[in-house]
Amino acid sequence: MEEMSGKAERERHIKVESADEQNLLLAAAYVYDAQYNRNIPFETSPQAIRLYYFYNHWVMQVTTYFLIIVDLLLAVFEEPATYPLPFLATAVIEVVCLLAFFARLVHFSKVTPRNVFWKDTKNICVMVAIMLNLIDLIIYGVLSIVYIKGIRWSRVLRPIYLVNFTESRQIRRAFRSMRNTLPEIMYVFLLFMFSVLLFSLMALKLFGNRKLRTAEGEPYFENYLDIVFNLYVLVTTANSPDVMMPAYDYNAWYSIFFIAYIVLNTYIFMSVFLAVVYNNYRKHLKNEIRKLAYMKRRKMVDAFNTLKVKVGSENVIKEDKWKSLVKLVAPDISNSHRELLLRVSDDEQKGHVEKESFIRLADLLNIKVITMKTRTHLLESCIPRVYRSKCSQFVRRIVKHKGFVYAYDIIILINAIFIALDEKSAAISNAEWFFLAFYLVEILLKLYTYDPRAFFARNQFWNWFDTFIIVAALIATIVNTGMKSVIQYSSQQVLDIVFILRVLRLIRIIDSIQRFRVIMNTLINILPTMLTFCGLLLAIYYVFAIVGMEAFNGKIRFFPENSTDPFAAECGTPALTDSAFAKSKYCKNNFNHFGSAFIVLVELTVVNQWHVMATGFSLVTHPAAKLYFIAFHVVIVIMIINIFVAFILEAFFVEYSLEKSEVETAIEKKIQELGMAVQEDMPAGNLVENMENCENDNGTFGETNQKGLMFRIASKRYRTVDALLQRMFEAEISPEDEAPPMEDILNMSPNDVYIHNPTFHTAA
Amino acid sequence: MEEMSGKAERERHIKVESADEQNLLLAAAYVYDAQYNRNIPFETSPQAIRLYYFYNHWVMQVTTYFLIIVDLLLAVFEEPATYPLPFLATAVIEVVCLLAFFARLVHFSKVTPRNVFWKDTKNICVMVAIMLNLIDLIIYGVLSIVYIKGIRWSRVLRPIYLVNFTESRQIRRAFRSMRNTLPEIMYVFLLFMFSVLLFSLMALKLFGNRKLRTAEGEPYFENYLDIVFNLYVLVTTANSPDVMMPAYDYNAWYSIFFIAYIVLNTYIFMSVFLAVVYNNYRKHLKNEIRKLAYMKRRKMVDAFNTLKVKVGSENVIKEDKWKSLVKLVAPDISNSHRELLLRVSDDEQKGHVEKESFIRLADLLNIKVITMKTRTHLLESCIPRVYRSKCSQFVRRIVKHKGFVYAYDIIILINAIFIALDEKSAAISNAEWFFLAFYLVEILLKLYTYDPRAFFARNQFWNWFDTFIIVAALIATIVNTGMKSVIQYSSQQVLDIVFILRVLRLIRIIDSIQRFRVIMNTLINILPTMLTFCGLLLAIYYVFAIVGMEAFNGKIRFFPENSTDPFAAECGTPALTDSAFAKSKYCKNNFNHFGSAFIVLVELTVVNQWHVMATGFSLVTHPAAKLYFIAFHVVIVIMIINIFVAFILEAFFVEYSLEKSEVETAIEKKIQELGMAVQEDMPAGNLVENMENCENDNGTFGETNQKGLMFRIASKRYRTVDALLQRMFEAEISPEDEAPPMEDILNMSPNDVYIHNPTFHTAA
Repeated sequence: MEEMSGKAERERHIKVESADEQNLLLAAAYVYDAQYNRNIPFETSPQAIRLYYFYNHWVMQVTTYFLIIVDLLLAVFEEPATYPLPFLATAVIEVVCLLAFFARLVHFSKVTPRNVFWKDTKNICVMVAIMLNLIDLIIYGVLSIVYIKGIRWSRVLRPIYLVNFTESRQIRRAFRSMRNTLPEIMYVFLLFMFSVLLFSLMALKLFGNRKLRTAEGEPYFENYLDIVFNLYVLVTTANSPDVMMPAYDYNAWYSIFFIAYIVLNTYIFMSVFLAVVYNNYRKHLKNEIRKLAYMKRRKMVDAFNTLKVKVGSENVIKEDKWKSLVKLVAPDISNSHRELLLRVSDDEQKGHVEKESFIRLADLLNIKVITMKTRTHLLESCIPRVYRSKCSQFVRRIVKHKGFVYAYDIIILINAIFIALDEKSAAISNAEWFFLAFYLVEILLKLYTYDPRAFFARNQFWNWFDTFIIVAALIATIVNTGMKSVIQYSSQQVLDIVFILRVLRLIRIIDSIQRFRVIMNTLINILPTMLTFCGLLLAIYYVFAIVGMEAFNGKIRFFPENSTDPFAAECGTPALTDSAFAKSKYCKNNFNHFGSAFIVLVELTVVNQWHVMATGFSLVTHPAAKLYFIAFHVVIVIMIINIFVAFILEAFFVEYSLEKSEVETAIEKKIQELGMAVQEDMPAGNLVENMENCENDNGTFGETNQKGLMFRIASKRYRTVDALLQRMFEAEISPEDEAPPMEDILNMSPNDVYIHNPTFHTAA
Repeated sequence: MEEMSGKAERERHIKVESADEQNLLLAAAYVYDAQYNRNIPFETSPQAIRLYYFYNHWVMQVTTYFLIIVDLLLAVFEEPATYPLPFLATAVIEVVCLLAFFARLVHFSKVTPRNVFWKDTKNICVMVAIMLNLIDLIIYGVLSIVYIKGIRWSRVLRPIYLVNFTESRQIRRAFRSMRNTLPEIMYVFLLFMFSVLLFSLMALKLFGNRKLRTAEGEPYFENYLDIVFNLYVLVTTANSPDVMMPAYDYNAWYSIFFIAYIVLNTYIFMSVFLAVVYNNYRKHLKNEIRKLAYMKRRKMVDAFNTLKVKVGSENVIKEDKWKSLVKLVAPDISNSHRELLLRVSDDEQKGHVEKESFIRLADLLNIKVITMKTRTHLLESCIPRVYRSKCSQFVRRIVKHKGFVYAYDIIILINAIFIALDEKSAAISNAEWFFLAFYLVEILLKLYTYDPRAFFARNQFWNWFDTFIIVAALIATIVNTGMKSVIQYSSQQVLDIVFILRVLRLIRIIDSIQRFRVIMNTLINILPTMLTFCGLLLAIYYVFAIVGMEAFNGKIRFFPENSTDPFAAECGTPALTDSAFAKSKYCKNNFNHFGSAFIVLVELTVVNQWHVMATGFSLVTHPAAKLYFIAFHVVIVIMIINIFVAFILEAFFVEYSLEKSEVETAIEKKIQELGMAVQEDMPAGNLVENMENCENDNGTFGETNQKGLMFRIASKRYRTVDALLQRMFEAEISPEDEAPPMEDILNMSPNDVYIHNPTFHTAA
């Protein structure tokens, strides 16, 4: 979002006069789209383009995200509320949100060709959802005036905005993946259910007439539906081995029945679910990435055609046009960086860029090139005499020494032991001050040795992390001690924060061990995609939470320990007397407000004991309530979690197979040629020593070169899985391929691609 | 194994006189090895070859397998025994087994070159295991004479024979896969344990001083080691949400701590484990398959070199040599089949086979070509008048009609309802006879319509299944009714069998639905490999069971319900009073003999409630007993189950990407050319109508062709995953590649192959 800010903004708002400038603006829009993988066609009239720029403005996007979150969070304040607000307040907020969504949709319709807009189910969905939300709100409002309590059924539609509105391509992809996998998984599921039903029938015949009793003294396997439920629960392993024990106690050979059941249904069928989901995920992912890659190619070709001029027999783009275009698209990059890109694009310095090189521009812009300058330490320029003194040099040499890192690793380990020891002893509690001092000294020493601007560079994750943790711990500890000595009372919240910060400090030791760092980097790398995946999970949680709140609200209540309610131990309802639910003290696992509903759903996702909750809620309402829990299990555990695992597997394999892209190699070669390379994977310590990111360098290429300017391609850890996948596919499109027209790309079906041999064709 | 029987046997034992015949024998040994993927080099002296044939003789192999199973099963009869036998008896049996193993090893050393034999760790392992087993046996025997009870510690070595002796390449591969994955998984595991320890420290600080109580009234999170154990259990989800409830009841916000923990450790880390295991599995599988493919190529080249003669400028093999070779290698295939293979190998009928075609021979032999003949129904030849009558034709047309299948599907559904209904009503119990009659009539009608020899052909799985189930049910029902009416008593065992058979009958409905059939076929296809995988699992179970029996034998006892033991409810030990173990009535989950130890291990594999068992056993022995259970979890769930999932995923992807191999296409083309093709995937009904497998056809190709002989390539369902994988790799070896020498192949390392882009390079 920020990429659009600054200079480009200003230039954009200057009235576009000449056709040339209009063309430039249009081409910039194309390149910009290609760079950020927006896959929507837009109108090409100057009016529409300006609206389109406005549509993509970061303020608009942040506002939309914000309103979506507000709309979703309304569930916390609406009846049954975690924090109650009057109906009027929530209604007004909701109407504001809905209006904003509608406005955004209208805005979108202005920039997209009409036929594309109306063919996109996303837009239709949002429109219908807005309408239904409004109708529901009005009905509920009118009913509440006449004191009738309605149901806010349309609240389940709110996640639609999150899924369909935003830039969350990943969420939509996971949704599509679910939808596409559905038919195939349905048959496996039916077969699986058939096997469950068959085994249940067998169990009924084998154990039904034995008059066996469970550990709780209930009748064992006498009712067919109960057996089906119990065996379904056994698939999730939640009631193993309890469900087997009565039969096993009766005759040891009956265990074979249960072992056969578990092997078939838990191990084989569940693996097959994963295999089917994963296979489909891969198939569709492949198609989507292909679409994106073609789309990008198409847009770059369009941009080229907008700006091309004929030189000799070839169509090319003149250097000055190219420069203004890049300035418009990426106003934030430095002059020298732009110069570098030009050198890469115009390899032979002909003064113009050819089509093939131009098409790579979107990728070139996406590669984070870090421009660095040899720069003196701040202190060196202020007090050179002192900083360069022997003593100072000695200190700096120590800090750079490996031993320094090891010494602090040992301090961290000792610190860990102190944390584990009892807090009440004064010596141990005071030791905390020493540790804090040690860590502070470490940070100060590092700041003294390395340039602060380099130390706090954007990609120095661990430095930021350290400093934040130490400073926060320092403040919290001071506040805590202050409170203790002044008002003789230490706040539990502050203490908790102090404790957490202290333990988090220990994480730093990971960064000292090379192997751990590699794993951590992989995890950090897939983190962004994982987070958008959480968006999908939350959307589904939201729907289930709303439904659950309507169905089970107030049926089960939690009483604090000293309550006088006669049924306090039975969650306030005699129906739960002697139930496993009450015995396990699960009363707080209820659907009485959004927060607790959410936590129940997390517990159901973890699966264990879900049958206790399902049985508990069906006892206080109706036996059919179990269906809600089974539905949740099928959707979340069989579909979503498997997609999640598929995604992690895929991400890991892609990570394992990292290679430099062709474009990156081109840039690197050029950097090498120009003799301005910094070694890529230098350890952080060395790197930051005399370098800093220089983002505001306005000199031209030739000049800055003398100043000790250096380039470096940003480390792999900041690339997304999506980008990697896309690159893999792009390598296969021939450079001459102009990509099919937009319409065809949008209609590509996953069945066109069939990964007929996903694994072994590539053998070397 | 059976492939070696019959004619070839006889031929082999005829004294080999001429050098020519010796060469033929040598070449046959090469081809035979290539066909069955034996990856051992053998000596080429005539003496050694004869010994080698004897080594691979099916009797020898079956005997070895049998003795291995006997040796393993000794655990059932040794103290602590499921079925006790005197020590002398088991000792004698064990010594016999060990001697046989030793003899087999000596035999093997005679056929393998010395340096290969001594470099193979398999052989060394077996030798050491035999020695240790003998020493242990002697010590134990001597001690028992002087009435000292020793420990049979060497019993844990027994699975070595299963793994190292047999043809179980899959087991060894899975083992190697485990060993190779170990270093990589170790670092992830350390990081994971680091995170568990860190979270435990945080939990100690947050909850340790709150004086909270669990649902059982125990102190909550006050001891660091307890917290670590509890949080480790939480990773397996076995104590969720119970472990969270006290903190959650105290303050809802603390749930964030547990949710963060579960997301990180249960979901992310466990997926990473799967990813690492899967990635390694794939990498090593790749290498092994490559080795096998090269080995096969090498052996075929060797065979060719043994038999080649110069014709013109080319080395070739004469037709008669080729025929005798094939007769020797595959004595069971029909003359016409051999003729077909010759036509494929000698495409232009030059009277000799060239090198390139010869190398494909092993693959050609592996393709199951079903030779079929148009043959008249048995009855048609006996009573042609009746069989060809209008009435008879009408009956046959009905049986072949789709409606016939549907009618029986409906009968099956009605039968299912009847099974579910109460057995005691006479009407329902008698209905069983009607159903049995219906099914019998169905089978008889089918036998009337289709030729019995075709109906019971080897690949008609469902026909065999149906007939077996119906006939068995008929017998069991008659026995049951007989017993009831004669001695007024129905045996529970017979009744159980009747019930199970009745329910199994319902499975047949799967075969009526196309989609289900596809899934079933995939499952059946990967079944053989899955079974060998179970071998690995059993080997590890065996080791853990033996260790568990030594450690926990007799500590926990099971008492039947009417027992008078004062601690019957506490499993005979006061230590378990009020424990979750006793309350859940888990007393039968003990290590008192091999059978029950095995079932406990299965329950531990399923994971749920494993902490209850771990705590129970540590209460009656020592807190360190938990380590046994944690070790089991790490080995089985984190390593083995993940390899299992990796294996299923891989198998599924390979299944999804089935294509005809080049060799198959060559055969099919030839069959087509000769005009003797049967459509491949005809539904079973049509297929068996007038065809039968003709395996004893001794006519030559030209003659039989007139008799209506037809060929068909066996359906995909009978191919193994291994073969498929190998084929995929072979497609990439160029036909001219002679493969490196044997030594190099055996030393190939997995790091030579790097699947640098497992997924997307193959994009289309």
